[in-house]
Amino acid sequence: MRKIQLDDPGITREAICAAHESIKTHTHNTPVLTSSYINAIAGCELYFKCENFQKVGAFKARGALHAALQLSDDKKRHGIATHSSGNHGQAVAWAAKMLGIPAHIVMPENAPNVKIAAVKDYGGLVTLCESTLAGREAALAKVVSKTGAHFIHPYNDVAVITGQATCAKELLATHPDLNAIVTPVGGGGLLSGTALSASFFGRGVRVYGAEPEGASDAWQSFRAGRLIPLKQSNTIADGLRTSLGHHGFAIIMQRVTDILMVSDSEIISAMRLIWERLKIIIEPSCAVPLAAILRHPKFFEGQKVGIILTGGNVVLDVFFETLGRV
Amino acid sequence: MRKIQLDDPGITREAICAAHESIKTHTHNTPVLTSSYINAIAGCELYFKCENFQKVGAFKARGALHAALQLSDDKKRHGIATHSSGNHGQAVAWAAKMLGIPAHIVMPENAPNVKIAAVKDYGGLVTLCESTLAGREAALAKVVSKTGAHFIHPYNDVAVITGQATCAKELLATHPDLNAIVTPVGGGGLLSGTALSASFFGRGVRVYGAEPEGASDAWQSFRAGRLIPLKQSNTIADGLRTSLGHHGFAIIMQRVTDILMVSDSEIISAMRLIWERLKIIIEPSCAVPLAAILRHPKFFEGQKVGIILTGGNVVLDVFFETLGRV
Repeated sequence: MRKIQLDDPGITREAICAAHESIKTHTHNTPVLTSSYINAIAGCELYFKCENFQKVGAFKARGALHAALQLSDDKKRHGIATHSSGNHGQAVAWAAKMLGIPAHIVMPENAPNVKIAAVKDYGGLVTLCESTLAGREAALAKVVSKTGAHFIHPYNDVAVITGQATCAKELLATHPDLNAIVTPVGGGGLLSGTALSASFFGRGVRVYGAEPEGASDAWQSFRAGRLIPLKQSNTIADGLRTSLGHHGFAIIMQRVTDILMVSDSEIISAMRLIWERLKIIIEPSCAVPLAAILRHPKFFEGQKVGIILTGGNVVLDVFFETLGRV
Repeated sequence: MRKIQLDDPGITREAICAAHESIKTHTHNTPVLTSSYINAIAGCELYFKCENFQKVGAFKARGALHAALQLSDDKKRHGIATHSSGNHGQAVAWAAKMLGIPAHIVMPENAPNVKIAAVKDYGGLVTLCESTLAGREAALAKVVSKTGAHFIHPYNDVAVITGQATCAKELLATHPDLNAIVTPVGGGGLLSGTALSASFFGRGVRVYGAEPEGASDAWQSFRAGRLIPLKQSNTIADGLRTSLGHHGFAIIMQRVTDILMVSDSEIISAMRLIWERLKIIIEPSCAVPLAAILRHPKFFEGQKVGIILTGGNVVLDVFFETLGRV
């Protein structure tokens, strides 16, 4: 381990086991798929943990539910809240539904209708706001102060990281002999949770983060040994256009082997390979780990490598509009 | 049962069990997925048997392998052959690879490169021909006479029907209390095999075929009580643009409850629902049963209904070309 003084939240093996016990009646132990065709291209044995089949279609269900379960009954009564245009918003709304409490989701006014509808389908109370970060934070502060709801941060939250760690725990329970696990890195919740579970439940398994070149703050921060915020992003991997949180960063510096970067065209090629060969729908963000393995084959040659496919929430309008014209 | 004199091939329960034993070391017992969201829309409990995850990405692997396994060692040596631009061609090439024998696949010269490449990936020897049925049959006759290979028909073959029946057998083994099963109908191999397994392994389960309006020969034949060949077709469900075979038709007339028709726009809507909610890639032909259930809800209200998702081989060029321009 690198000796760097950072704000490590001290999440334990026992905390991850307890988190798993508390959420697993509501979440799926998602299947692990393989493809001999993709293995032949990658030169290693790949095990795809399919969180696209998770509740709300993404691993975010794990962290959001675990964070909500940590609240006292009194706090729970006031509900939970977040701002999100993506999977975390749906996950918080779903978690609230599981617990029978209110969820307040602040969403940018330019969010796709299908995403807003999904949050409402889970019973989430939607507040629209300006699409800037400042606008989102102001709207959230107002909602929280009015309702007393508890804000669940999408990644810089100890309970959320502990919840996300349950995914790699499941993967290692069925595939204990993995040599490495690769996850995408955006805010760092999944990567840091995975690194913890790899340390606690794996046998010397290395953990890599995979990041788009157009949002490379984790790559830069990892090399600098300090948090370098993302100033602007330009990538198709919309789930990864976020700055690393400090809790996750502390864990990543101590337990992650490396961050690997990939281009958008490599992401699209990897996404296509997964759609065509595994016959599943994944988001562009999900394809980043496979893209990284194909770009850096020497790190993985002949090894058993786990990949966490983070989610399957893609807006398919273009595809179906084209079909509709056939 | 209707009393109509037809050429019933007399496939028995024992024959289907033997077929299942003989192929199951090579084929997947594919998973069954559910979606509470789709159930709410359909007003019934749906169980999707995912043959898109089958070897070669379609149920066709079952029938082709079973037919190849029936051949004597002497016949096997000369290999197997078929003409196909779709899943059956890949299935025959794959089955031959499993048995270590040659496969001769006649494909129309305008078949997509990706389909030709897939057959070659399995070691299939491809002969290109004119894209008319006459051109395909002439080219196949030439290949068969030159090589002595055994022609495996895509559906009008007793061994193929028996192989396809193993899919519903698996579905009923894990879900014995289904009230109905719906499959697409093209040549009738899957529908007739499913109807046989429903009779032998189900508890009074009804079987429906679902067919596009633009290729409605099964619907017409079923009502007329005699085979009415498909003269022309106009549907997005490219896997179903075939005339019913006489073996399958005999079984269908005796054991199928009804054939239900759907429009192409209903097929596209159902396909989208499956992609977005089950997060899996299916072909348009696959979506026809769900479209039929959504169009005829009264037949299925409150019941447990199995759907066989036949395959996931979609040419995704348009979607990824659009993404590549983002």
